[in-house]
Amino acid sequence: MNPLNRLVVATIPFVPRSIVRRFSAPYIAGAELGDAVRAVGEMNREGACATLDVLGEYITKQEEAWAAARVYKEVLDAIVANRLDANISIKLTQMGLKLDLALCREVVAWLVGEARQHGVFVRIDMEDSTCTTDTITVFRAMKEEFDNVGIVVQSCLRRTLADVQALAALKTSFRLCKGIYVEPRPISWRDPEIIRSNYVLLLEEMFRAGCRVGIATHDARLVWSALALIHRMGVPPDGYEFQMLLGVDPELRRIILKEGHRLRVYVPFGRHWYAYSVRRLKENPEIAGYVLKGLLGRA
Amino acid sequence: MNPLNRLVVATIPFVPRSIVRRFSAPYIAGAELGDAVRAVGEMNREGACATLDVLGEYITKQEEAWAAARVYKEVLDAIVANRLDANISIKLTQMGLKLDLALCREVVAWLVGEARQHGVFVRIDMEDSTCTTDTITVFRAMKEEFDNVGIVVQSCLRRTLADVQALAALKTSFRLCKGIYVEPRPISWRDPEIIRSNYVLLLEEMFRAGCRVGIATHDARLVWSALALIHRMGVPPDGYEFQMLLGVDPELRRIILKEGHRLRVYVPFGRHWYAYSVRRLKENPEIAGYVLKGLLGRA
Repeated sequence: MNPLNRLVVATIPFVPRSIVRRFSAPYIAGAELGDAVRAVGEMNREGACATLDVLGEYITKQEEAWAAARVYKEVLDAIVANRLDANISIKLTQMGLKLDLALCREVVAWLVGEARQHGVFVRIDMEDSTCTTDTITVFRAMKEEFDNVGIVVQSCLRRTLADVQALAALKTSFRLCKGIYVEPRPISWRDPEIIRSNYVLLLEEMFRAGCRVGIATHDARLVWSALALIHRMGVPPDGYEFQMLLGVDPELRRIILKEGHRLRVYVPFGRHWYAYSVRRLKENPEIAGYVLKGLLGRA
Repeated sequence: MNPLNRLVVATIPFVPRSIVRRFSAPYIAGAELGDAVRAVGEMNREGACATLDVLGEYITKQEEAWAAARVYKEVLDAIVANRLDANISIKLTQMGLKLDLALCREVVAWLVGEARQHGVFVRIDMEDSTCTTDTITVFRAMKEEFDNVGIVVQSCLRRTLADVQALAALKTSFRLCKGIYVEPRPISWRDPEIIRSNYVLLLEEMFRAGCRVGIATHDARLVWSALALIHRMGVPPDGYEFQMLLGVDPELRRIILKEGHRLRVYVPFGRHWYAYSVRRLKENPEIAGYVLKGLLGRA
């Protein structure tokens, strides 16, 4: 990131929430489950499948873990009732990962079991690097008991190649992304070109092991690299899907769909929109404009 | 190099020696052997091994060749006496390469023989392109007689792929670097991206031939590429080591060591610090500041 962008990012906490909310409107389905169901319905009609994310992370009270799981249970019911082509994505810090690992396991096991009864797959999201090891531990425990669960790995982390090698032995279903959290240099690569190259290396590793992969990226070069790899390695259509965030580059989404690839849209909804919005804001090239508007009070 | 940097580089000869010396302090262990022993000891404690370089090159009198070899003999004694995990790097123009090839061979053969008795490996450095052919000739002669000797090749030179193919047949121990000397276009690549890609091609060639390689670079992209290649080709831990210069990116050094790779630090010392310092100065991004300080007389 160049110094100007770093400066701009540093001012984000001072941007009024109303501005952040307006900025993030295209990226979030809405505050209510009904909004999310509508957004997924739209994506399904466009030919894309979806994954539903109830916004929220880093809970501070144990009861919030069960509360989050119960909201996801409503999501599962809504998926079945509305015959949505969708699964769910969950964040473990929303289910107590940082409070009590045993509690987190218990809550997630209950939810994955519920999802299984609903015929729905559960993707365990990856968060910042303080969560990586524990998230993998919980995933492994779920994987022993259930077949409807997968994990996310990030190509920006130096450890990921080793993680993928270990997890590929379990025929893990992966989502592969670059990783949006800013991590310290000793554990992560910084150069965007390295992060890209590592992404392709990891993808090849996953395909070679016969794992299913959600290719989560909006980077046109990575989309090309993935298509080239799928072609070269003869990966079958059910061996992969592309994944994109709601609101990010809808044209690319339509292009990939039109070419006949499976594509899943990440649809977040709920009241806890702030942390997610800030992450979207940080990676947006037009961020300076929004920040400036906010600081000048042009809300 | 952009035109501004070229201009700045052209002014380096006019920068006072005091400024050059101050700039180069982190890159040189000191003037005396004791300084070098201390620096190597520090590196060893950090988990890195080292290679010791007695600064000096392009001698103009024959007796200087034997004088240089005798200093290296003291270095060998110091390595053994202080139980340092270190070898030595020698420059052939410091041992008469440009004066008398037969003399140079004789001096180097004596030194490599001494090193062998001390159980120390000798790396023959590569200098500018007027030295390449003769350096390889001397290396080949040493390689016939001794097993404790290796050479350096540069990925910026167009001839290097052919050199590597020929030398790989002898199971040569290589150090691979990009090459710091500015060479004419007919014999060298200029585009940093080509020099990088050629580096990876050469490294793959060396690994495929089963040669041991010192991967000498501070370029994070090349470090990634080397790690990816080591992974893909299943190169064993004793088949390679990373190599870095004293004072350059200590954080990267610690990262590589922490991940369990062998890493060797190039530790130069001695009174002839000027030419080496100017090469470091030329490749430093903050060079303009130093040059400006020098020209404004703010020593």
